[in-house]
Amino acid sequence: MRIGIVTIFPDFVKVIKEYGVIAQAVENGLLQIDIFNLRDFTTDKHKVVDDYPYGGGPGMVMKPEPFFRFFEFYTSNYGKPYVVLTSPQGRRFDNKVAMELATREQLVIICGRYEGIDERVMKFVDDEISIGDYVLTGGELPAMIIVDAVSRFVPGVVEEESVKNDSFYNDLLDYPHFTRPREINGLTVPEVLVSGNHEEVELWRRKESLKKTMLKRPDLFLKHQFDELDKKALISLFKELMKDAR
Amino acid sequence: MRIGIVTIFPDFVKVIKEYGVIAQAVENGLLQIDIFNLRDFTTDKHKVVDDYPYGGGPGMVMKPEPFFRFFEFYTSNYGKPYVVLTSPQGRRFDNKVAMELATREQLVIICGRYEGIDERVMKFVDDEISIGDYVLTGGELPAMIIVDAVSRFVPGVVEEESVKNDSFYNDLLDYPHFTRPREINGLTVPEVLVSGNHEEVELWRRKESLKKTMLKRPDLFLKHQFDELDKKALISLFKELMKDAR
Repeated sequence: MRIGIVTIFPDFVKVIKEYGVIAQAVENGLLQIDIFNLRDFTTDKHKVVDDYPYGGGPGMVMKPEPFFRFFEFYTSNYGKPYVVLTSPQGRRFDNKVAMELATREQLVIICGRYEGIDERVMKFVDDEISIGDYVLTGGELPAMIIVDAVSRFVPGVVEEESVKNDSFYNDLLDYPHFTRPREINGLTVPEVLVSGNHEEVELWRRKESLKKTMLKRPDLFLKHQFDELDKKALISLFKELMKDAR
Repeated sequence: MRIGIVTIFPDFVKVIKEYGVIAQAVENGLLQIDIFNLRDFTTDKHKVVDDYPYGGGPGMVMKPEPFFRFFEFYTSNYGKPYVVLTSPQGRRFDNKVAMELATREQLVIICGRYEGIDERVMKFVDDEISIGDYVLTGGELPAMIIVDAVSRFVPGVVEEESVKNDSFYNDLLDYPHFTRPREINGLTVPEVLVSGNHEEVELWRRKESLKKTMLKRPDLFLKHQFDELDKKALISLFKELMKDAR
């Protein structure tokens, strides 16, 4: 998969491809991440990318021309990409949107800065995506978030088993994790996890996932498709609570 | 405000304080951002921060000891901070949560990696926060998102007028922005914005905000408190549509 990011802060964005599993995926050729400096698509000496807003008001607006030039350059070299603009007015990003974007051959993400981007740039945009209801100083972090979440669904980037264990994969939150030591400052690891009984471990983990999801994210719980382990876990949770209630 | 970030990738996270308005705020002493390398709180030669999960399963779990040592170090030097863990099971991050966190004197954000963090580290955590329903390869980007959104509410970091114009500030989405040139590839700037009539510009912008919010985010529209300009804008929108319908 080929991902392009258009930004005025290429050195900020480039860390996304230098760490962890994404760096490995780039090295293994599973992902190509190109970072384009918007200033390279200006024609003036000072490489200006912003200007005053028509109609007045605070802040500056990103000029349209550098984007027009960028898209002319990109499409004439690599063909038409699927273009995403990160914006608070976009559709909400989630794991399902990430999975969908991961099927695209070429993705280009535009990072906004200042008060916003000249509206006419929307002509090139296929998809407006919001990563959440908060305002940021720029679109660079949202672009990096999208690259990160999408990359996990590109085959081979992370272990498949790992993806299936994720929160949200199955509309369930993750179970608690424990590693050595067995005791730290009086806090111990649940006995079942050191029992060596694989079936009991699986049941305990599912119970914890279901409990957490019911209490913290009932909206996800309502969407969840129940399998046999879920039902066994619910019976076991129910029995425990009946016993406590006695 | 003092913000600490605990990570195994300090060079990844440090870009957050090197660009844009956050860099300026750090330079002006409005913000102090300390990045702590979790490996500095290990005691073994190889600075190991992860280990196999009790109970088996894929991936590795972040060991508890380095976190226990970090918090001992931090509190004995700077006192008790407000500790945030970024996690998919947390409460949903939004602009209101950002405003609330901006009132804390000391914030420490823990970045998870691998399959998760040993559950006993939760002992130090005051607040679990989720930036959205997507899975990422690590907690570094969510931590950077939180720093960015929170910083905007630290007095002096961005112009106050700019914050008030933001999407979500008033439960309304932003209006479209335009800058020079007035025409590009046949696309022009709306006449009203070049009219010089300030009142008309304000009315047009509010109409665009209301329209966009009604169509794209009715949930925000329902929360919005109407002021006089909103009501004038609604009358004007209504009249326009009545005319079109005739």
